[in-house]
Amino acid sequence: LSSKPNLRRVGILGGMGPAATVDLMAKVLAATPARRDEDHVPLIVWNVPQVPSRPAALRGDGPSPLPAMLEGARFLQGAGATALAIACNTAHHWADALQRAVSIPVLHIADAAVAELMARKPPPAAAGLLGTRETLRSGIYQGRMAAHGIPAVEPDEAMQAAIERAIADVKAGEMDRACAAFIPVADALVERGAQALVLACTELPLLPCPAGLRPRLLDPTLALARAIVTHSRGEPCEGCGPDVS
Amino acid sequence: LSSKPNLRRVGILGGMGPAATVDLMAKVLAATPARRDEDHVPLIVWNVPQVPSRPAALRGDGPSPLPAMLEGARFLQGAGATALAIACNTAHHWADALQRAVSIPVLHIADAAVAELMARKPPPAAAGLLGTRETLRSGIYQGRMAAHGIPAVEPDEAMQAAIERAIADVKAGEMDRACAAFIPVADALVERGAQALVLACTELPLLPCPAGLRPRLLDPTLALARAIVTHSRGEPCEGCGPDVS
Repeated sequence: LSSKPNLRRVGILGGMGPAATVDLMAKVLAATPARRDEDHVPLIVWNVPQVPSRPAALRGDGPSPLPAMLEGARFLQGAGATALAIACNTAHHWADALQRAVSIPVLHIADAAVAELMARKPPPAAAGLLGTRETLRSGIYQGRMAAHGIPAVEPDEAMQAAIERAIADVKAGEMDRACAAFIPVADALVERGAQALVLACTELPLLPCPAGLRPRLLDPTLALARAIVTHSRGEPCEGCGPDVS
Repeated sequence: LSSKPNLRRVGILGGMGPAATVDLMAKVLAATPARRDEDHVPLIVWNVPQVPSRPAALRGDGPSPLPAMLEGARFLQGAGATALAIACNTAHHWADALQRAVSIPVLHIADAAVAELMARKPPPAAAGLLGTRETLRSGIYQGRMAAHGIPAVEPDEAMQAAIERAIADVKAGEMDRACAAFIPVADALVERGAQALVLACTELPLLPCPAGLRPRLLDPTLALARAIVTHSRGEPCEGCGPDVS
């Protein structure tokens, strides 16, 4: 560490929900090599949960969250952020629209996650994808995985219903019930060839999983946290977009 | 809960250090009666740790942190915050100067903590004060406690040195060593008449304390979190300053 760290500010577009934002911030802290307060990444955080429901908008059932997200993104840019991160998988459906509206790079959670899949030795021949129905439909992970030659193993309809229950149980703090819904789906995806399991919903990494599953799990929130640290420290990284320093 | 919560935005001036900021945000989340994301307090967070050292400035040994704090405060005000909270006890030395520079109220951590002391049944006849040397010297707690008729029981020099070691050990994650330094001081203050113990440093509430001590402890970070929630929901509160809604 240099004695005068020259760290770039990163903006976090959060509030979707607020617990996922706190989790991302804690993972940024843990991923930072720091001895003193001032070695830590300067973060400006828009943690405003009053955003129209992303799943409802994707079902055509409510207003778009994009205007509220743009208010936050523009504000973060005005505060000196040199990159943006969105602390929600489902909201990444609007990441490209957001990127077109700002002049700083959006660090995409799926870019960060797929870069970590590819860095595994060896990279998985196929990877399971666990998240909300809306995140899976948006295709943000599948396209990037396919571009790197990793097929996505997706839950069938009954398995997806179990994952939705597990996510709701985590939000309600019902961890035992969440595990009971999650584990059979994870096991089934492994049986169908998934050598890694991408937990593409910010609630799922909070689950206490059996030790046997853990080496397969990939936490995109942690991958995004590492991309934030790498960007802030000015190191080149996958998924960081153009350098704007 | 109304179906359309009308919550006021609160700005958090953080980064001093960043772990205390994450802890305050998590306590705001936990203190909020919420069923859905949008029931949570909208927080804008300036978590920029590149602020000159507060202890060094107070020793006359370095530049003032006030300009950096003012940059954050003005920015949070511009983002629609209707009140500010500072996630650091020692930095409250500059709270009055900050308050004079902005037009929204600063929710003072010592106001919030002393209001919770006074709400105990019965209020303590005397309260121990544990924090950094600089926080104790700044007098932000003692003056408010005296105004409510609660004398402060302060550590002597040897006890203060143990508290400084405990705080440094918490920062380093050495919880057992921190407890070994903290507990004898806490016990000694209780023997000297402290019916409550104010943990006036954001590191100290992170300590796993013996069950016997717990009913006496008062966590000002939690008190500040509750004041943030009360302000956001527009309820009257001690230490919230003028209503600006």
